[in-house]
Amino acid sequence: MRAVVLLSGGLDSATVLALARERQLECHALSVRYGQRHAAELAAARRVAAALGAARHEIVDVDLSRFGGSALTDPSIPVPETAAAPGTIPVTYVPARNTIMLSIALGWAEVLDAGEIHFGANAVDYSGYPDCRPEFVEAFERLAGLATKAGVEGRPVRVRAPIIGMSKAGIIRTGARLGVDYALTVSCYQADDDGRACGRCDACRIRRDGFAAAGIADPTRYR
Amino acid sequence: MRAVVLLSGGLDSATVLALARERQLECHALSVRYGQRHAAELAAARRVAAALGAARHEIVDVDLSRFGGSALTDPSIPVPETAAAPGTIPVTYVPARNTIMLSIALGWAEVLDAGEIHFGANAVDYSGYPDCRPEFVEAFERLAGLATKAGVEGRPVRVRAPIIGMSKAGIIRTGARLGVDYALTVSCYQADDDGRACGRCDACRIRRDGFAAAGIADPTRYR
Repeated sequence: MRAVVLLSGGLDSATVLALARERQLECHALSVRYGQRHAAELAAARRVAAALGAARHEIVDVDLSRFGGSALTDPSIPVPETAAAPGTIPVTYVPARNTIMLSIALGWAEVLDAGEIHFGANAVDYSGYPDCRPEFVEAFERLAGLATKAGVEGRPVRVRAPIIGMSKAGIIRTGARLGVDYALTVSCYQADDDGRACGRCDACRIRRDGFAAAGIADPTRYR
Repeated sequence: MRAVVLLSGGLDSATVLALARERQLECHALSVRYGQRHAAELAAARRVAAALGAARHEIVDVDLSRFGGSALTDPSIPVPETAAAPGTIPVTYVPARNTIMLSIALGWAEVLDAGEIHFGANAVDYSGYPDCRPEFVEAFERLAGLATKAGVEGRPVRVRAPIIGMSKAGIIRTGARLGVDYALTVSCYQADDDGRACGRCDACRIRRDGFAAAGIADPTRYR
């Protein structure tokens, strides 16, 4: 079976791709260049797609930086280097980003006659983004069934979020078991062009804590 | 109040913009260049946005022609010039197009703090696309509430589809009452670069029948 796998270039989606490959799925990896300041993650996505045997990798452009409203798409909003207050959504949240990425994945999935979209959302060790929660994923899957010809004809595209309930350490252990080379991945919100991490943003902090908790050496290149 | 209005350049969305302007909304018009063969509709959208007093008009690029799968995005699939069999979805359906456009509108709406997205779906005199039905619009609105910071904070973006239950003649009469100049709009799936219509595709047929049923002179320029 074919699947479209959303691949950001980070640690989570690399693990999701490895899980899909373990299931012998023909994986069509999709990345989105949305105007993110950490565009080094797209080069990482290319490396990960190749290393894990994706059948194809596409990078689609949707310039969300023209709207701004996020530290990831507006250079005038600094990336926070301390954690947001509990229960708040940090300024690195990009309005509707995951909805947009899943929608594009849905279009490609329908053309490919792919039965599944794989999405690396995580709702445990995460930044509190609303579009990473199980209820969001379920609502998108329901929408996908109504939105498409495939759905109307009884072949709805399913949305899989296989790591949504795992801890970061659990994700890393899973990927390590499957042979994921996390040195290829970039999580940092302000990685430099060479993919080196700041070590201070939310993404870096969660990632570093994950490797520590997993008891696995952190291969991240810090600058 | 602000609203994001999806504006294709066709007759339906022009009427939706006129209805929103009648409500004195500050309208941010959004068009999507998705690789459609009838790109003349985007020039029409520019004209309509200006004529109806949109506060701003943005055209966002998302190239769906790289995926193909539709007569509107794949030049090798001809646009049908006879109606599809009843109950079938014609090849002019573009996989997930309306989901993608609504998602981008959602992102912009959240950044603008706009309370509503206005969407010109019609489920009466239409081509049978799944993503024009009321249940699709409702599912998207539900998703929008879960996907966004605005939704989590109790200010969900609402999705309005004010012409979804109108006949094409009713839409045209509504727009005519509001002073919409339909000569500015382009509906044809294979309009030439000058916006002149073929007169034979599904979109042309439904539009022409609508003007006839409304008893209003059809201003469409046919080639």
